[in-house]
Amino acid sequence: MGNENLSPVVEMDQAYDETIEKIFDLLEEKKYFHCRDELLKHNEVEIAEMLVDIRRKFDLQRMVVLFRALPKDISVDVFAELSVDDQIDIINIITDPEIEYILDELDFDDMIDVLEELPSNIVDKILAKAPKSERARINTFLKYKEDSAGALMTPEYINLKKTDTVKDALEHIREVGLDSETIYTCYVLDRGRKLIGVVSLRALVNAPYDTPVADIMVEDPVVAHVDDDQEEVMDLFTRYGYLAIPVVDNEFRLVGIVTVDDILDVIEEETTEDIERMGGIIDTSDKEYLDMSVWQHVKARLPWLFLLMCSYFITGGIIQSFQESLSQVLSLVIYMPMLMGTGGNSGSQSSTLIIRGMATGEIDLSDYFKVIWKEIRVAVVVGIALSFINYFRIVFLDHNPPLVALTVCSSMVLVVIIAKIIGSMLPMLAKKIGIDPALMAGPMMASITDMISLSTYFIMAGLLLNI
Amino acid sequence: MGNENLSPVVEMDQAYDETIEKIFDLLEEKKYFHCRDELLKHNEVEIAEMLVDIRRKFDLQRMVVLFRALPKDISVDVFAELSVDDQIDIINIITDPEIEYILDELDFDDMIDVLEELPSNIVDKILAKAPKSERARINTFLKYKEDSAGALMTPEYINLKKTDTVKDALEHIREVGLDSETIYTCYVLDRGRKLIGVVSLRALVNAPYDTPVADIMVEDPVVAHVDDDQEEVMDLFTRYGYLAIPVVDNEFRLVGIVTVDDILDVIEEETTEDIERMGGIIDTSDKEYLDMSVWQHVKARLPWLFLLMCSYFITGGIIQSFQESLSQVLSLVIYMPMLMGTGGNSGSQSSTLIIRGMATGEIDLSDYFKVIWKEIRVAVVVGIALSFINYFRIVFLDHNPPLVALTVCSSMVLVVIIAKIIGSMLPMLAKKIGIDPALMAGPMMASITDMISLSTYFIMAGLLLNI
Repeated sequence: MGNENLSPVVEMDQAYDETIEKIFDLLEEKKYFHCRDELLKHNEVEIAEMLVDIRRKFDLQRMVVLFRALPKDISVDVFAELSVDDQIDIINIITDPEIEYILDELDFDDMIDVLEELPSNIVDKILAKAPKSERARINTFLKYKEDSAGALMTPEYINLKKTDTVKDALEHIREVGLDSETIYTCYVLDRGRKLIGVVSLRALVNAPYDTPVADIMVEDPVVAHVDDDQEEVMDLFTRYGYLAIPVVDNEFRLVGIVTVDDILDVIEEETTEDIERMGGIIDTSDKEYLDMSVWQHVKARLPWLFLLMCSYFITGGIIQSFQESLSQVLSLVIYMPMLMGTGGNSGSQSSTLIIRGMATGEIDLSDYFKVIWKEIRVAVVVGIALSFINYFRIVFLDHNPPLVALTVCSSMVLVVIIAKIIGSMLPMLAKKIGIDPALMAGPMMASITDMISLSTYFIMAGLLLNI
Repeated sequence: MGNENLSPVVEMDQAYDETIEKIFDLLEEKKYFHCRDELLKHNEVEIAEMLVDIRRKFDLQRMVVLFRALPKDISVDVFAELSVDDQIDIINIITDPEIEYILDELDFDDMIDVLEELPSNIVDKILAKAPKSERARINTFLKYKEDSAGALMTPEYINLKKTDTVKDALEHIREVGLDSETIYTCYVLDRGRKLIGVVSLRALVNAPYDTPVADIMVEDPVVAHVDDDQEEVMDLFTRYGYLAIPVVDNEFRLVGIVTVDDILDVIEEETTEDIERMGGIIDTSDKEYLDMSVWQHVKARLPWLFLLMCSYFITGGIIQSFQESLSQVLSLVIYMPMLMGTGGNSGSQSSTLIIRGMATGEIDLSDYFKVIWKEIRVAVVVGIALSFINYFRIVFLDHNPPLVALTVCSSMVLVVIIAKIIGSMLPMLAKKIGIDPALMAGPMMASITDMISLSTYFIMAGLLLNI
């Protein structure tokens, strides 16, 4: 077989690429029904991705035409896979009965996500048509603050009583299962809707029919609180590896559940935010790179660049005050970028490790002394190793006086040590006072260590070269 | 109530902290059985975390004593939650029957992870005692390459025939369910063990008993190939949000499944690797920051620092060749750090966005032109905005001649544009030629843009100041 080494996944991607090319061609010829048939050969995730590609290549109109041409039940699944921006754009074009149908069929948590972004007059119109109990429930959910467990959860879970038998439970699941976000974990509540235990479908399926649920449920389950930030909920999932986590209010009443598939999105979102902040980008508002306008990109980048640039007004001042000395030994200027660069890189390394360590829960604020002591020892070894090589280069390759080499090398050791101390301590300090540690990464480090590198360098030059 | 605003999660963390303090005190007094009782008030995840804390605070011996004092069934669950390093250290201390019991009770994929790290003489001893069929299976799994779907998967899944009825299926699940990694997704195989469909327990529970599995199974399921890298498997999970994904061989025979809880660990691992590489740290071999020795830290940091430092030999050369001009207008030195810093930061922003965009699948290599065109436009706006402010500062605050200001500002615009082009193109180029794009982030950008900034600066100075 020729394609023996081709993995099915690669084949799947190829199939995707071939279909999308075909669809682009068909759309050029305005053959919409052929397009629809091509789309329907794929699952809802891929159809949604194709619609986004179509919008990027052509326009929103063509995307909506194709979306409306999908069979109703499939269109809802596809809708759920689109980004909120695309969802809102579609809703602004389609008719009211279409909107109602979609919102009705969506999972509760997906519906709330859409409603949150709609203008209030449309929301009111939708709420007016909903049954009273549903309306109250929607209103409660719309009030949870963004990025909280409350905003993430769904109220569609299976609840059991502790006196239920396994048989009762399984029958109950058969009755209401289709409307639940998950049936794999069921929640045992007391009369006041307080959460007293959880039981997995696995345990139910493997137990004799007459066993009371109370005998096989797990008490004191891990829970999230409705006001918890989504980052805390995410940490619970990565820590425990559960499929769903119950969300309770102040009275420990069960108000909803968060499922692992929603958490995968949160992880991607939070990681992107962290990485972008570490790279000096502030707030891209969850939009994809290619979907952001030039102006939105400028807004996400200019403020931080400007702030950091201002810090160089100080760096410039430092140089100015040493201008006299520099003019005497101009060769010192040659090694300035290296010192600043190495200082920045050393600081970046430390801050990256600490920021990531705190994000994964490896490093606690109480590890302060352990971290600083480790960084100092690492810095001494690294600083001396780098200086050693530099000394020979400056004296034997650049033919500069040994005292200049000594100035550069002693500064290098000091700069690496100071940079690593600051690089490790600043993120911890930021966390302590409630600032996102991710802001204390590379770009910030570079600005701070540049000042320190130059000051150290000039002080050492003054001491060793008598200038 | 005084603690009305305290979330149960916070209370849980407090409970953890209180217990660990109590255990530390009890261990000082060598009251091991009291310690064990305290541990047993928590679940296996927390007990494992406590054992790690005990090892950090005291030593491996005390950790192992407590581990052995746990009831056998709990000790296996705790063992599964420990890091491979801790697992191996424990195995090297406990007796052969204890090892056998643990390996026997562990999930198959966890057992393989442990066996992979054990010295071969111990593995041979263990294999000698295993039944022949089991031995063959273990040997197959030990051969999958690290970080592949094969190494990640477990062979413990539920397989059905397409002629089974729902009733047959549910009975089969009751029989073998306890030994399966998940019962929530079942796999339908033909006689040759080829995968022909998947069916969820949800669909089974909600269908009439006499329905054939063939009627409710999903055909053409999303699959991973046994040789796929774990990063590709991870992408499938984030794309589709499934609980488990089947793994097939070249003949499309089902060889195992990967479950979402294992993927959460992979995501954390891969993200950490990406972030660390972006921060200039190479290969921390999955160890936690605090568990790495000073020497291991040096090994992870020195090579990259050294390489980047060497790039500054070139930067130094550039300055040297312009030394004559610099001595004429020494005030140019004042603005060097600002230009280099802003260039580095601009490049970092672009490379961060592109690296992350490629990691999440938002940006394709084929988006080359769209990306470069967007970056150029953003760079022009940002560069001009920053220069504008600078011009006034240099002329009116620093009282330098307008021509010096013009030199700095025109260089600034050029540097920002070049930095953003390089910052966006270099990661894409790296991916194209098979290098990890994450290496093209901050530290690398800083080194490259420093050279470009200085060259641009000196060329502009030559043109405008006639030096």
